[in-house]
Amino acid sequence: MDTGEFHRLWSELLPIGKAEGGGYLRFSWTEADLDCRTWFHDQSKRRGLRFEEDRNGNLYAWWDPEKEPVQDPEAPHPHGAVLTGSHFDSVPHGGAYDGPLGIVSAFLAVDQLRTEGAMPKRPIGIAAFTEEEGGRFGVPCLGSRLLTGVLEPDRARALTDPDGITLAEAMDAAGADPDSLGPEPERLQRLAAFVELHIEQGRALDGSESPVAVASAIWPHGRWRVTFTGEADHAGTTRLPDRRDPMLTFAFAVLAARKEARLAGGVATVGRVEVEPNATNAIAAKVTAWLDARAPDEAVLGEILSGFESKVTERAGRDGTRVAIHPESETPIVEFDASLRDRIAALLGGAPVLPTAAGHDAGVLSAHVPTAMLFVRNPTGVSHAPGEAASDEDCAAGVDALAAVLRDLAC
Amino acid sequence: MDTGEFHRLWSELLPIGKAEGGGYLRFSWTEADLDCRTWFHDQSKRRGLRFEEDRNGNLYAWWDPEKEPVQDPEAPHPHGAVLTGSHFDSVPHGGAYDGPLGIVSAFLAVDQLRTEGAMPKRPIGIAAFTEEEGGRFGVPCLGSRLLTGVLEPDRARALTDPDGITLAEAMDAAGADPDSLGPEPERLQRLAAFVELHIEQGRALDGSESPVAVASAIWPHGRWRVTFTGEADHAGTTRLPDRRDPMLTFAFAVLAARKEARLAGGVATVGRVEVEPNATNAIAAKVTAWLDARAPDEAVLGEILSGFESKVTERAGRDGTRVAIHPESETPIVEFDASLRDRIAALLGGAPVLPTAAGHDAGVLSAHVPTAMLFVRNPTGVSHAPGEAASDEDCAAGVDALAAVLRDLAC
Repeated sequence: MDTGEFHRLWSELLPIGKAEGGGYLRFSWTEADLDCRTWFHDQSKRRGLRFEEDRNGNLYAWWDPEKEPVQDPEAPHPHGAVLTGSHFDSVPHGGAYDGPLGIVSAFLAVDQLRTEGAMPKRPIGIAAFTEEEGGRFGVPCLGSRLLTGVLEPDRARALTDPDGITLAEAMDAAGADPDSLGPEPERLQRLAAFVELHIEQGRALDGSESPVAVASAIWPHGRWRVTFTGEADHAGTTRLPDRRDPMLTFAFAVLAARKEARLAGGVATVGRVEVEPNATNAIAAKVTAWLDARAPDEAVLGEILSGFESKVTERAGRDGTRVAIHPESETPIVEFDASLRDRIAALLGGAPVLPTAAGHDAGVLSAHVPTAMLFVRNPTGVSHAPGEAASDEDCAAGVDALAAVLRDLAC
Repeated sequence: MDTGEFHRLWSELLPIGKAEGGGYLRFSWTEADLDCRTWFHDQSKRRGLRFEEDRNGNLYAWWDPEKEPVQDPEAPHPHGAVLTGSHFDSVPHGGAYDGPLGIVSAFLAVDQLRTEGAMPKRPIGIAAFTEEEGGRFGVPCLGSRLLTGVLEPDRARALTDPDGITLAEAMDAAGADPDSLGPEPERLQRLAAFVELHIEQGRALDGSESPVAVASAIWPHGRWRVTFTGEADHAGTTRLPDRRDPMLTFAFAVLAARKEARLAGGVATVGRVEVEPNATNAIAAKVTAWLDARAPDEAVLGEILSGFESKVTERAGRDGTRVAIHPESETPIVEFDASLRDRIAALLGGAPVLPTAAGHDAGVLSAHVPTAMLFVRNPTGVSHAPGEAASDEDCAAGVDALAAVLRDLAC
C-alpha cells in the first residue's frame, strides 16, 4: 500500500471530534460520532459496498461475492462471512488511532484486494462498533456486548452519561431507535471470522523488524469502585489525632495498588477520583476512587486485589475511616482462536505474537466467532492520550497485512 | 439568658439554606443568603435598631445612645462604637452554628441589656459580614477584606463562582451594587472595638468548667495550589516503568503533608482535588490539589511547607512527574488585642484563653480595631460539617457573656 494513499483517506477522518490540546472527543451518538457514521456510509457508497446498520447501532459495509458462496470445507465456517473493523469512539481526549485505524485500514484493504483483482468467495464485511471505550455511557464494548447479548437491552437503555442523559434519550436525539437494541445471534452465526486491526498499545514492536503483530490473548481485567468514608471537619481546627480523614486512606491505597501490581507482575491504576465536599478548608467526608487492574492471568489479578484489599483495610483501621470495594466489571482472560492466530502469524512471515492488556470488541466477539487481532506498531507506546501515534509507513504495512489476511480467509 | 428564648430565635434561622444530609448551603448572594439578610433586617426593625448596609454588602443594626456619647478617657476610643457580630454564609454542607451563632447571640445580648435597663454610652452595633467562608467566590472574609481595603474592588468584582458567575454579576442579580465595593476607613475609625462570638472549632472546652473561652490568637495559615503533571496513557497497556503517573506523586504528597505537620506540631490537609482526564481506564495527565496548612507560629508553618516541598519534589523525580506549588493565600499570625483580651477574660471570671487555627472576620478587622473573640463550647469539636453543635445551655451562656462584654465596653 502506498503511504500517500493511506494518508489521504486517514486525513479525511482527522478533523472530526478533534478537541483543543490535540485529543479527541468522539463520544457515541454525539455530533462527532454522527459525522463519523456519515463518513462510513459515504465510504461504503463510494465503493458500492452494501451498507447496513444492526439493531445496536453497529455499522457494516459488505463486499458480497458475485456468485453464491463456494463451499470451502477447509474454512472454519464454510458459508460464513469474514468481518473486520473496529470503532470510531474515543476516551476523553484520546488519540486519533485507537479504533479509527481499524476502520480506515479495512476500507483500504478492500481497495487493495480489488486493485489486485481478488474475488471474495465469501462476504467480506467492514464493521464500526458503537462505543467501544465506554467513554460516554460507562460500559466498554457497548455495541458488541448488546450484539452478543452480554448486556441486557433494558440495562443499556437506562445507562446515563455524565449529564444524566440516558442511552435511550441519546439514541432518540440522534435519530436512532433505542427500542431495537438487543442480541442478534443469527448475525453472529453468519460470521466465519472476525479480525480487528488496532494500533499497538504499548511499545513491544518498537525496534522490532515487524511493524505488525498478532494478538495471543487479552489480559483479565477488573474495575472496582472503592469508597473511603471518614468525617468532614474543619481543616484548621481539628487536631490531627481527632481526624478521620479518608484522603489519607485513599492516598495510601493509590500507592498500595501500584506496589501490589508491581510485586505480582500486573498493572494497577487509579485514574478517577471524586471527593466530597471537595473544599480546600474542609477535611473530606468521602473519597470515591476507581481501581483498574489487569494481569497476565486471573490468579495474578486475584493476588493484586487481595493484597490491595488487606493493606487498605488495615490502613483504614488506623485512619479511623471505612473502605468498601465494589466490583464494577470483571472480565476473564480472552484467549484468541489458536488456529486462526497461528495461520495469520505464518501468513505474515512469522509476525510477533503478543498479549494485550486492553479490552476490545474482538474480546467480546471471540466468545462467539473465531477471532484474531492485528496490532500496528506504536513507537512511543502512548495510548488513550493525544501522543498516541503510528507512522504512515507502518499503517500502510498494516493495510497490507490485513489485505493478506482477508485474501487468505475469504478469497 | 433563658435557653428557651435562645432556642426560639435560633430556630427561626435553621430552615434557611438547609440541604439534604443536614448541612447548609448558604453561599453569598444566593437565595438562602438573601433570606438571611431579610431576617437580619426584620430583627433590626423588630427592635427599633438602625439598619445599615455598607458599600460591601455587610449589614449593621445599630443601637445608638439616647444622648450624645459620653467621653470616657479610659476606653481605647473615647467616641467609638462597639461592634459585635459574625457571618451567615457556610462552607458547602457546613454546620448551622459557624457564623450565625454570633449574629443571633448579638441580637439576644442587646435584648438582655435592654431588659436589664442598661443604657449604651456609645453605639452598639450588630454586624453580618459577607462571605466569610469563601464558599462561593473563593476568597475568605470577602466582606471584611473589602471593608478594610485588603482586597481590591476590581479583583473582587472579577472573582468567579464554580459556575463562572462573577461576584459583580451575582451582586447585580441580587439587587446589590457591585460598583460601590471598596474600603471604608472612616467606618473603621468610628469603631472602638469589635467582638466576635463564634462556636468553638475544636474541643478544648469539652470537660472544662467554662462554656465560653476568649481567643488569644489566630494561627498563621497558608493555602497552596499544587499541580502534579505527568502523562496520560492507557491504564492497561502502559508498562509500570514507562508510566509518568501524577496520581502516585499526589498520593505521596497527601501522606507527606500529614507527616510534616505532625512532626512540626501544626496541621495540614488536602481536602480538594481535581484530576484530568479523570477516567477509570486512563493514567491521569494532571492532578491539582490544594494544601491547607496552619501552625502556632510562622516558623513552624514554614517548616511544614519546606519539608513538604522537598519530599514531594524528590518523589516527583522518581515518578517522572513535575510538581509546582503556587501560594493562593498566606495569612500571618493574628494576635488579638492583649488588653481587651485580658479585660474580657477577667470579666468572665477567668475564662480560658485559647488560640484558634480558623480564620475569621475578627482576624481581618484586628489590624484596624481592637478586636476580641468569644468561643462557645462545641463538645464534639466538629466544624465545617453537619455534626457541628453546641447545647442551648452553652449558647445561652454565650449570650450572657457577650451581654456582659457589651455592658462593660459600651454602657
